[in-house]
Amino acid sequence: MIQPWPLIESREIGDYHIFRLRHDRKLSPRTGEPHGFYVLDSSDWVNVIALTPQRELVMVEQFRHGTNTVELEVPGGIADAEDASPLATGIRELREETGYEGVRARLLADIAPNPAIMSNTCHIVCIEQCAKRHELKLDHAEDLATRLVPVADIPGLVAAGKIRHSIVLVSLYFLDLWQRGLKQ
Amino acid sequence: MIQPWPLIESREIGDYHIFRLRHDRKLSPRTGEPHGFYVLDSSDWVNVIALTPQRELVMVEQFRHGTNTVELEVPGGIADAEDASPLATGIRELREETGYEGVRARLLADIAPNPAIMSNTCHIVCIEQCAKRHELKLDHAEDLATRLVPVADIPGLVAAGKIRHSIVLVSLYFLDLWQRGLKQ
Repeated sequence: MIQPWPLIESREIGDYHIFRLRHDRKLSPRTGEPHGFYVLDSSDWVNVIALTPQRELVMVEQFRHGTNTVELEVPGGIADAEDASPLATGIRELREETGYEGVRARLLADIAPNPAIMSNTCHIVCIEQCAKRHELKLDHAEDLATRLVPVADIPGLVAAGKIRHSIVLVSLYFLDLWQRGLKQ
Repeated sequence: MIQPWPLIESREIGDYHIFRLRHDRKLSPRTGEPHGFYVLDSSDWVNVIALTPQRELVMVEQFRHGTNTVELEVPGGIADAEDASPLATGIRELREETGYEGVRARLLADIAPNPAIMSNTCHIVCIEQCAKRHELKLDHAEDLATRLVPVADIPGLVAAGKIRHSIVLVSLYFLDLWQRGLKQ
């Protein structure tokens, strides 16, 4: 049975806008020795599976600054202090990044972006019956293009390595399980 | 067409052992304005899909220090300077974390853990015909338990939220696509 590691002390290293960095000293339950771990704290994230009545997925293309590459992704973003819930974040991000709006929003899954080094959760929200109803509302750091992709093409695009962002791939896995009746 | 953002300047902030943090100033091709981005540089990671002749997946349970939770995951780790390739990293991590060894190792996919804020790649390696042939070799910061999980149970565990690490979920998605003949 795997045991939790008791915390000895926690030290804030810095606040870098999209995350804060801290260093925790903990005690190994196996060896009794102390060990240090770096942890990134961020607000929760939301990814949106937005479907049109024509069985298309509303995707976005954007330049990503970690990898310096243009990536094909689903819309998403960081939960805002003003958002009432993950569903509200998902509805807002979909509208701001693509101008699309749907009629039903529900939570498909909660996942951990990286439980080894990050404390936050990513909520995967599914919105159906989407159509373009607004203009885009991009902030200074964004430059996005909307791409409508037939849902039937998704497994082929994933297998071919055309979609690479791990959290986007997880969202597509849950869409896949849901379509096959393996996820409520 | 989404354009890359030219780099104005890059500044190293710190080296935190498992990643280095830098701040890049870049020019938006849409607005012409500069904007700052924080990026984490890490060595590449490897996740291992290890299968037994009985159609079980070799998984590990471990305490994760970002979320402070015990997580059910696949074996994996950081590419070592001495590893000759992602396959060598995968074979080594599987042996160290579980004592299992297989007869065939091949690359299933390369993904980006988080292209927004991380520069590295995670290689997903598949190893078949695995059996326990060694003792575990855990480092000070590790405490792991091996769990054999029937491959047929994986979609149900994912749907029920029992597996939460995004990169592990991506590995399982590729296993799923491969089993359905949708991924070579």
